[in-house]
Amino acid sequence: MQSFEIYGGIAGLFDFGPLGAALKNNVEQLWRNHFVLEEDMLEISCTNLTPENVLKASGHVDKFEDFMVKDVKNGQCYRADKILEEHIDKVLAKKAKKMKEEEIKNMELIKAKADSYTQEELSNILKELKVKAPDTGNEIGEPLAFNLMFSTQIGPQSSSKGYFRPETAQSIFVNFKRLLESNNGRMPFSAAQIGLGFRNEISPRAGLLRVREFTMAEIEHFYDPEVKTHPKFDLVKDECLPLLTKEKQIAVESPITSMTIAEAVETGVISNETLAYFMVRTYHFFQAVGIPKEAMRFRQHLDKEMAHYARDCWDCEVETSYGWIEIVGHADRACFDLECHSKSTKTELLGARPLKEPIEVSSTLLLPDKKLLGKSLKKDCKILCDYLDSLDEEQKQAVHKQYEDAETEFNVDCGSKTITVPKDAINIKIDTKTVVEEKFAPHVIEPSFGIGRVIYCIFEHCFRKRPNSETRTYFEFPALIAPVKTSILPLISNNEEQLKCVRDLKSKLNKEGVTSKIDDSSQTVGRRYARTDECGIPFAITIDNDTLKDNTVTLREIHSMLQVRIPIDELSITILELSKGLSTWEDAQKKFPAFVAEKEE
Amino acid sequence: MQSFEIYGGIAGLFDFGPLGAALKNNVEQLWRNHFVLEEDMLEISCTNLTPENVLKASGHVDKFEDFMVKDVKNGQCYRADKILEEHIDKVLAKKAKKMKEEEIKNMELIKAKADSYTQEELSNILKELKVKAPDTGNEIGEPLAFNLMFSTQIGPQSSSKGYFRPETAQSIFVNFKRLLESNNGRMPFSAAQIGLGFRNEISPRAGLLRVREFTMAEIEHFYDPEVKTHPKFDLVKDECLPLLTKEKQIAVESPITSMTIAEAVETGVISNETLAYFMVRTYHFFQAVGIPKEAMRFRQHLDKEMAHYARDCWDCEVETSYGWIEIVGHADRACFDLECHSKSTKTELLGARPLKEPIEVSSTLLLPDKKLLGKSLKKDCKILCDYLDSLDEEQKQAVHKQYEDAETEFNVDCGSKTITVPKDAINIKIDTKTVVEEKFAPHVIEPSFGIGRVIYCIFEHCFRKRPNSETRTYFEFPALIAPVKTSILPLISNNEEQLKCVRDLKSKLNKEGVTSKIDDSSQTVGRRYARTDECGIPFAITIDNDTLKDNTVTLREIHSMLQVRIPIDELSITILELSKGLSTWEDAQKKFPAFVAEKEE
Repeated sequence: MQSFEIYGGIAGLFDFGPLGAALKNNVEQLWRNHFVLEEDMLEISCTNLTPENVLKASGHVDKFEDFMVKDVKNGQCYRADKILEEHIDKVLAKKAKKMKEEEIKNMELIKAKADSYTQEELSNILKELKVKAPDTGNEIGEPLAFNLMFSTQIGPQSSSKGYFRPETAQSIFVNFKRLLESNNGRMPFSAAQIGLGFRNEISPRAGLLRVREFTMAEIEHFYDPEVKTHPKFDLVKDECLPLLTKEKQIAVESPITSMTIAEAVETGVISNETLAYFMVRTYHFFQAVGIPKEAMRFRQHLDKEMAHYARDCWDCEVETSYGWIEIVGHADRACFDLECHSKSTKTELLGARPLKEPIEVSSTLLLPDKKLLGKSLKKDCKILCDYLDSLDEEQKQAVHKQYEDAETEFNVDCGSKTITVPKDAINIKIDTKTVVEEKFAPHVIEPSFGIGRVIYCIFEHCFRKRPNSETRTYFEFPALIAPVKTSILPLISNNEEQLKCVRDLKSKLNKEGVTSKIDDSSQTVGRRYARTDECGIPFAITIDNDTLKDNTVTLREIHSMLQVRIPIDELSITILELSKGLSTWEDAQKKFPAFVAEKEE
Repeated sequence: MQSFEIYGGIAGLFDFGPLGAALKNNVEQLWRNHFVLEEDMLEISCTNLTPENVLKASGHVDKFEDFMVKDVKNGQCYRADKILEEHIDKVLAKKAKKMKEEEIKNMELIKAKADSYTQEELSNILKELKVKAPDTGNEIGEPLAFNLMFSTQIGPQSSSKGYFRPETAQSIFVNFKRLLESNNGRMPFSAAQIGLGFRNEISPRAGLLRVREFTMAEIEHFYDPEVKTHPKFDLVKDECLPLLTKEKQIAVESPITSMTIAEAVETGVISNETLAYFMVRTYHFFQAVGIPKEAMRFRQHLDKEMAHYARDCWDCEVETSYGWIEIVGHADRACFDLECHSKSTKTELLGARPLKEPIEVSSTLLLPDKKLLGKSLKKDCKILCDYLDSLDEEQKQAVHKQYEDAETEFNVDCGSKTITVPKDAINIKIDTKTVVEEKFAPHVIEPSFGIGRVIYCIFEHCFRKRPNSETRTYFEFPALIAPVKTSILPLISNNEEQLKCVRDLKSKLNKEGVTSKIDDSSQTVGRRYARTDECGIPFAITIDNDTLKDNTVTLREIHSMLQVRIPIDELSITILELSKGLSTWEDAQKKFPAFVAEKEE
């Protein structure tokens, strides 16, 4: 529902009502189960407020922007690439019949490239095509870069600029050292975070799909680039995903569907096992939340689409009434992010791999006799010592060679000054150590989920109509993520005994892990079933006169609309097993006697 | 852990590492179970970004501020009330022996009132007591009001100022109409939200207790102020809470502990049943997360502490190494919030109660004949009609009376002008309707939890040392909220068969709802148990040679450090029942054979 509706609402901000919020919680919990728990990931939870220097290092302060244009008369702002795309759609819809094939192709190419143009290119194209403000037809101004982050001030001193994070990933990268420690220094490992991201969209559209505040679930899998295998790849290697490769896109063809994941990695279609493994896991996750296989495809980024540091990138797209939309990105980001933060903080962000054989490493120690040096060099002593301290092994070896070649003194070029050093004022030692591991810059695979978009797709793909009825609609959510597992419908009119029975049943179910919603309104049971169905509650329990006698209730399943008579004590286990897919509704129908009610209205 | 540590960190921002994040998720889930599900609340999830007009109406834009003072030399900012309190603590610690009793009392009174002074009062007191900047001893400037909200710009147009919400409550209030609808118009009902709040603290201190970004869990219970009872009050009426009433505080006495909740409501100690009911539920929640009864008290706000609209307010405080700290507020906010938003948006935010007997309500309809009036009044016709439209029932009746008393014409005072109206140009009808319900402004009880503070208290109160060992420490979290339920420790050195067994066991436990963490390092089992204990993992499974033969494992409990031998198929159900408190470790010891291992190191 639109946020702050009674205040007229704000574009791009939406609230989740009771059913949406419950569905969202369940989807997040399933995601956690499917990824974090099943893959032993380190889940962390970091702040949204982020100081400027972190996002400066990551490139967001300088590069995280869209181009906007203003209606010159009323000042309304538009995203330049979006109005360009819309303009082309309109032109093609109107005039395609009269245009040459070449012209049409050219228009389509401009549309495909719309979000990758530079400021100058955009400016020229908008002028050339005479694009106007879509709401008024007024002239538009020059495209201007607009940073998409929400900025704020942290604390009362004016020096601390901060932003609300545009993604959760950066807080995982800056915690890399801690995470590696808590994994006992072992690689590979994955960290994950479910949390908010904020993007100050210029003009948000498309309902829940392009919003200013959204929940993301991101994984950063850190691994040794020299290890080409993923330990669990064997478990998925024979699966076939719908792969819309770069080549297929350029040739305007359908996705490949018959290639196993193992073949895809072997032939280089997908760049490595780890990336491929996560793509399959995403495919499984979407099936578990109710997205049919036919409505999914994995689209590889074209070379010009990818950030310069990315090596391969596959979006999981789902077909919706808005067309195919990106729900999850799977990017091979190489070592880009850790290197940025490492440089910017002068902190070592490396992993270590054991060496096959321990090796001997010698290091040169330059030991100045500061007393002697002080006497002969005076102030230059400090310059020399600082300089010697700053040298790496190779440079130290060069100084060592000079030392050996010299007779009584030798010159050291300290950068700012060349200093003549008496040989007896310096001692040189060679230290030899046995090293069992070597350091390396970890690479990163990043699967990044937009949870709001996942929810949107679930709503679209779980919506059903009853046969022979246009008006009776329901949501057939997988029971595992259904907002509420069962409704409780008392059929007897209000009395104390029944009231207690309903309340006790609800409390018992809750303790046993089954969520429920009571509907004790005075409406007919048929009307109440319909309401249950509209909320996507997969099961419904009725409490009737027999319940008070023999402790049994009826249990109805949403899709079949059939009921069984079941003892209260077996309710929770039955509903839980049905929800987790450990048993089926057919099993329950065999186990418990059918209950035949009057036909639902 | 400190956020953005490699960048030097930011005061008041903390991240949750893997164990903290898992504990936090479990505490939130328990809270949801205990409150939302058990009490059938409507949980929603709203945006953090909030437009200015909403927070203008709620009073936050004008009033949500602290006073700060600056070090005149280095510009460092301090919270004025906090440095006043610290100053008094220092003075009392140093000089109390030399001071008169009256002087001491006066100082203590100033300290107690520190956060309620006006700007002018603060200024005078700081000068009088010669308070200096605590870090440097420099002079401080005048106290200045500093708004604690983080402000930002929504969208590219400069007119849309927004804030990051300081509490989740306001988004519940602005959604009241929708919530009432989704509860089918019935009162009372509760809405709840778990989400973030942001406060731009002037100088954050006390670690996790005073931070700039935090998770809150808030409930707004909307009820009819004429209904004095709570439907579930009977279930809790005999419980005794530790009540530190206003009177006890003024008399510097300990809390009342022997008064039942029913007595407390009857005698007016607690203002109503609903408020009392939620206090008991909070008490139960804290016990479930591992806070001992002795470490809790409910402190009533003193009259001057409360906001002017609040009628009664009780903080649940927990004793920690920082002293007694507020974790949950329980406030009776009357109808303040809904009225603010209703006024500001001209939207009706009311509930309805059924009338005992339907009543007949008549309303007066003033029907001007615009054609006739137009002719005789010209421009005044519109003024008259607009005025008649704006009248309420009572005013309409007054016009009706004038009409009846008049012979051919009568005067209507339209505010800006008195207009003489010909009697035959107005028609008057009395409309009578049967009304079955009447509207009312709902009152609100607000229990508001600081989840970060709850987590902090859990860490303090679940920390244990093994007897006879200073260094072996562990967390005895209630299993229900423990970050991970069990560790899996393979004892055999690496081989394929075992690797598969460990992986299958983990996957099986996960499917059955039991979280686990594998520790297959080469360390001794004793060292690995110690590590498990430090993480507060309540159970540990070892896989040994017998496991591969007979599908049994050992299961160890953290507190007793005792083990049983148990079939793999009974693991999940056993751990889940132990976690939910449906069985005890003693039960498990009776059911399964003891396994006696070598003594742990």
